[in-house]
Amino acid sequence: MVDMERLSTGVKDLDEKISGGYPRNRSILVSGTSGSGKTVLGIHFIHQCCLDGKKCVIIATEETPEDLLSQAESIGRPLSKYFDNGSLMIYRVYEERAKYALDVLTYDIEDIDQIQSNIIGLLERIPENTDVVLIDNVGVFTLNMSPNEFRAQFDALIHALSKRNVTVMLIMDLSSDERIGNIAAYSVYGLLRTSIKDNPFTGARERLIEILKVRNTKIPLDPIRFEITPTGIVLLKK
Amino acid sequence: MVDMERLSTGVKDLDEKISGGYPRNRSILVSGTSGSGKTVLGIHFIHQCCLDGKKCVIIATEETPEDLLSQAESIGRPLSKYFDNGSLMIYRVYEERAKYALDVLTYDIEDIDQIQSNIIGLLERIPENTDVVLIDNVGVFTLNMSPNEFRAQFDALIHALSKRNVTVMLIMDLSSDERIGNIAAYSVYGLLRTSIKDNPFTGARERLIEILKVRNTKIPLDPIRFEITPTGIVLLKK
Amino acid sequence: MVDMERLSTGVKDLDEKISGGYPRNRSILVSGTSGSGKTVLGIHFIHQCCLDGKKCVIIATEETPEDLLSQAESIGRPLSKYFDNGSLMIYRVYEERAKYALDVLTYDIEDIDQIQSNIIGLLERIPENTDVVLIDNVGVFTLNMSPNEFRAQFDALIHALSKRNVTVMLIMDLSSDERIGNIAAYSVYGLLRTSIKDNPFTGARERLIEILKVRNTKIPLDPIRFEITPTGIVLLKK
Amino acid sequence: MVDMERLSTGVKDLDEKISGGYPRNRSILVSGTSGSGKTVLGIHFIHQCCLDGKKCVIIATEETPEDLLSQAESIGRPLSKYFDNGSLMIYRVYEERAKYALDVLTYDIEDIDQIQSNIIGLLERIPENTDVVLIDNVGVFTLNMSPNEFRAQFDALIHALSKRNVTVMLIMDLSSDERIGNIAAYSVYGLLRTSIKDNPFTGARERLIEILKVRNTKIPLDPIRFEITPTGIVLLKK
Amino acid sequence: MVDMERLSTGVKDLDEKISGGYPRNRSILVSGTSGSGKTVLGIHFIHQCCLDGKKCVIIATEETPEDLLSQAESIGRPLSKYFDNGSLMIYRVYEERAKYALDVLTYDIEDIDQIQSNIIGLLERIPENTDVVLIDNVGVFTLNMSPNEFRAQFDALIHALSKRNVTVMLIMDLSSDERIGNIAAYSVYGLLRTSIKDNPFTGARERLIEILKVRNTKIPLDPIRFEITPTGIVLLKK
Amino acid sequence: MVDMERLSTGVKDLDEKISGGYPRNRSILVSGTSGSGKTVLGIHFIHQCCLDGKKCVIIATEETPEDLLSQAESIGRPLSKYFDNGSLMIYRVYEERAKYALDVLTYDIEDIDQIQSNIIGLLERIPENTDVVLIDNVGVFTLNMSPNEFRAQFDALIHALSKRNVTVMLIMDLSSDERIGNIAAYSVYGLLRTSIKDNPFTGARERLIEILKVRNTKIPLDPIRFEITPTGIVLLKK
Repeated sequence: MVDMERLSTGVKDLDEKISGGYPRNRSILVSGTSGSGKTVLGIHFIHQCCLDGKKCVIIATEETPEDLLSQAESIGRPLSKYFDNGSLMIYRVYEERAKYALDVLTYDIEDIDQIQSNIIGLLERIPENTDVVLIDNVGVFTLNMSPNEFRAQFDALIHALSKRNVTVMLIMDLSSDERIGNIAAYSVYGLLRTSIKDNPFTGARERLIEILKVRNTKIPLDPIRFEITPTGIVLLKK
Repeated sequence: MVDMERLSTGVKDLDEKISGGYPRNRSILVSGTSGSGKTVLGIHFIHQCCLDGKKCVIIATEETPEDLLSQAESIGRPLSKYFDNGSLMIYRVYEERAKYALDVLTYDIEDIDQIQSNIIGLLERIPENTDVVLIDNVGVFTLNMSPNEFRAQFDALIHALSKRNVTVMLIMDLSSDERIGNIAAYSVYGLLRTSIKDNPFTGARERLIEILKVRNTKIPLDPIRFEITPTGIVLLKK
Repeated sequence: MVDMERLSTGVKDLDEKISGGYPRNRSILVSGTSGSGKTVLGIHFIHQCCLDGKKCVIIATEETPEDLLSQAESIGRPLSKYFDNGSLMIYRVYEERAKYALDVLTYDIEDIDQIQSNIIGLLERIPENTDVVLIDNVGVFTLNMSPNEFRAQFDALIHALSKRNVTVMLIMDLSSDERIGNIAAYSVYGLLRTSIKDNPFTGARERLIEILKVRNTKIPLDPIRFEITPTGIVLLKK
Repeated sequence: MVDMERLSTGVKDLDEKISGGYPRNRSILVSGTSGSGKTVLGIHFIHQCCLDGKKCVIIATEETPEDLLSQAESIGRPLSKYFDNGSLMIYRVYEERAKYALDVLTYDIEDIDQIQSNIIGLLERIPENTDVVLIDNVGVFTLNMSPNEFRAQFDALIHALSKRNVTVMLIMDLSSDERIGNIAAYSVYGLLRTSIKDNPFTGARERLIEILKVRNTKIPLDPIRFEITPTGIVLLKK
Repeated sequence: MVDMERLSTGVKDLDEKISGGYPRNRSILVSGTSGSGKTVLGIHFIHQCCLDGKKCVIIATEETPEDLLSQAESIGRPLSKYFDNGSLMIYRVYEERAKYALDVLTYDIEDIDQIQSNIIGLLERIPENTDVVLIDNVGVFTLNMSPNEFRAQFDALIHALSKRNVTVMLIMDLSSDERIGNIAAYSVYGLLRTSIKDNPFTGARERLIEILKVRNTKIPLDPIRFEITPTGIVLLKK
Repeated sequence: MVDMERLSTGVKDLDEKISGGYPRNRSILVSGTSGSGKTVLGIHFIHQCCLDGKKCVIIATEETPEDLLSQAESIGRPLSKYFDNGSLMIYRVYEERAKYALDVLTYDIEDIDQIQSNIIGLLERIPENTDVVLIDNVGVFTLNMSPNEFRAQFDALIHALSKRNVTVMLIMDLSSDERIGNIAAYSVYGLLRTSIKDNPFTGARERLIEILKVRNTKIPLDPIRFEITPTGIVLLKK
């Protein structure tokens, strides 16, 4: 395959399966069910980027920064140091959403549908010299948009970030992905899906990553089994 | 995993499977079909919290306090003592709903759609020093809300409770969960599902708990078989 | 389990499986496909209640009283005696509906959507000293209501009957149950489902009762096979 | 079972399976896919009624009387004699519908939605002394009605016919049955379903009748295999 | 079966399976997925009719006459001779549709929804002495009609053609058939379905014709395997 | 089959399976899931056309020209030479869309639904002497159109290109294809589907091309397995 600069996924074995990592200045969508390991994959990536000296931003729409930092530590990928020294910023979008909803509900019930409809607005919050952005979870923006609106905003965001030389990982819950008609998949450069499934041979449940698409990259077709351990993601043999 | 304070689930074997219990000051969603054991799981939790001296509130949207107390006793988890001494409050939301519906239907049929639309309003009813809240069943609030409205209110409720250091268990019937597009799953810290399924090997039906997600916690992927006995929930061997 | 007063189901073998019968002053929903035996289960219950000296009311939305009495006789559960001596009342709701529809259609086509929308109105027709009510089939009320409206009315009806110390069995066809999003299940104290299914081992079709939920009661999880004979329902061995 | 007067189905072997035939003055719904044998079952019934000296009416919404008579002859159930001597009337509803649609389309496209919406109007066309009515196919009336409207009209029709001592067979295509939410099943006294299915053992396709419901009548649960021969329907061994 | 005049299908082996051919002056609907052989079946029929000296009309909504003639030649059923001598007319409806859409889009975007809504208008284009009409594909008319509108127009077309002694084959793509609720099946005299399916025994894909219905005609229930060869359709052994 | 001029697919083994290649001056639709190889199939075709001296245009709605050129190189089908010397034009529709969305969102949120609704407008951008057009991905135009609107525009585009002697390949993601009701299939001359599926015998995932339809062409019914290698698509043995 043609040479592209790559950013390590933070999981060495995964890097090897996709030509060295996620393509730089491009977008990766991670979609999956609740609890399947999407955020863990995101933490690995951000932790590695911090280690490598990148400027990182996390836009957390469903957790507090504190919970996220604590989860990172629990899988052996501590981020507090970077958060404290400013090389990692975490936006409190979850809390802003909750607070705004409370205000709206308390004072004026009419406006609630406008809370979650501005993907593009995220652009203004990303500082100029940012290298990597993680948005967890972009699905919240689908609740009040038509597929057409979502796609226009989503494409514009991805294109603008790419032009600013930002590599972006977008996490999206599977419910939102399906509600919006799976259209996010077509706007991104790479697409991963995490899931938990019964192994038909052993009967046990296991975690899987499917690499559905990475443009310009040779990818494995078969799902990759993995575990989440106190030292993070471990890929399993086939 | 990182140390978090835990509240016992009231089922010792279950505590062991999730690092000691439900994370304190966080939210747990229990979703499942009718009769699958959601309320029983809730009673175990509240009973244990009462034993441990916590101030508890139950918001019962589908049962009278009397029926709930009687059910608790029938599984060896009597709550009357705590209800009587005031350490457990049970709100008669079921009866309020029924009475209000009757009034509306008798006097003015126009307003019926506004009966079940204020999740946030629950906040005002929870006393300042409350430690634990059980809402059984939050699904009733989905009947008249868009997914966007529901999510805004649900997130605001969870966030406000967390800030007030309340641990909350939310019970939701599976029909409502699916009607609202399974979005509640993404707002909560932990997610359990109860069900009754045919065992493909024995042909018998059995009760199952699936632990779909608990952030910051190592969880078992396989469903856990259980029985409801006169002394409460008993987990079965795999 | 905690002691509750029980009313015999009219099928001795079934009583034994649910701690003696249906809980008194509570609600039981029987849902199932057309021809699966819902009404037969209802006749057994009413016949037993009449035998036991209870005051009974049947609200028949899809049959004439004459057809119902004749069906009762055909399964060895004659009700005519009780109908004649006034201890059993049967409301001609089916005929009222049909007649009203005919009038509306003949004189004014605009109002037809208001025919089937008043569950609460049933309350006024139930005499003060009634012990047991059978509504067959409550599904007709779902045709012109939103899930929210239906739930508000359904809850109000159940609550009001319970306060008046009436035990109520509600029969609902499965199509209506699914149309309304299976929400009736969450408002009732007990839930039974009747069906006809292929036995995967013998290839023959058989009738099944599933006891999906009875609060405060130990219930069998496996479906119960049964036959309808000239002497009524006979439960079969597993 | 209780004695009810019965009308032979026109298929002796079928009579034996349902206590002698269709219950007199009641309604039978035959639902099934296109080509599964619904009309053939209707012709058998009408032919037998004509033989037995009943006054019969066919309301044919999808065929000309000529095509229907010719189909009857092709299965050894000639109806022309009865049609000619007036003991069988066949209404040209198909042709009226087509002609009316053509007029509407030619002169005024606005009114087309009102063509197929009056089930009740059929009542006026059935002469006073009619014994038996066959409506083939009532599904055409579902295209422009809500489930509520359909049910009100359908119930009113069935009730009015029953009061006039008319036995009615209603044929309904499965697509319409499903479109209207399968609600017709709950208004009728008996329900049959015809289909064509692969036999899982032989791999061959075969015709089946399922008797899903006949009130007050012992019915076989298993589907009945049959063939359409030049002498009409022949039931096959199990 | 009763004697009806038949028109050969153009496939001798198929004629034998349906009493000699398609019933004269009646309608046959051929429904199937893209590429399953619907048009090939239509060409066989028209070619045979031309051979037999009938006046034929093809209404081609998705191909140019040139492409259709070339396809006919490629399966050994050349139609050019008949097209040239006027015994076969092919209407350029595809091109008219495309041209009209272009005009509308260029000059006035408002009217585009009225392009494809006049089935009845086809009637005026069929010359008085026409014997056989093939409409390929009638599905295009479903895009902008309600099921009720479609059925009214479709029935009116079929009835009018039948009265003018025209035999008509209507081709409909399966997507349109399903969109409109499969209602076309109930208006036609005969119904065929073409498909491509995996043979469960050999694992190979094969083409199938199912004869779902031909009124007044004994039909085979099992699907018929066939191939498309340079000399046209060849039926295969079971 | 009748002689038609063919354009090589760029994959020799594939040419042999469809009589030498895609029919000249006609339309081919390639539909498939994200990452299944649609764009790779398009690059092969365009690369071959460039080699053969054709004037080519790519309308890229989801990628930058740079990314597309780099992907072409990565599969051994370099296009830069042709892009540089002007025999291949690539329209920056992706970037235009993103930029326009950003402008609209910044200045006026009302107009966003009109961004993606002009398929016909593409016609003006294709120079007069163009031989071959690749549109990747036409699915973006389905987001804001009714099936009827889409079909009118799509047919008009295909017809106009065919009249200008342009051969066109249209790539469409499967989500869009299904959203629009699979109607694009009926407007095109040929239809291919790419997918990734589990091989039921080996358990491994593999890439498949299904040739669902090519008019006037003998096609293989069975899916064709293939791999994407650094030298492009390689068909595998059955």
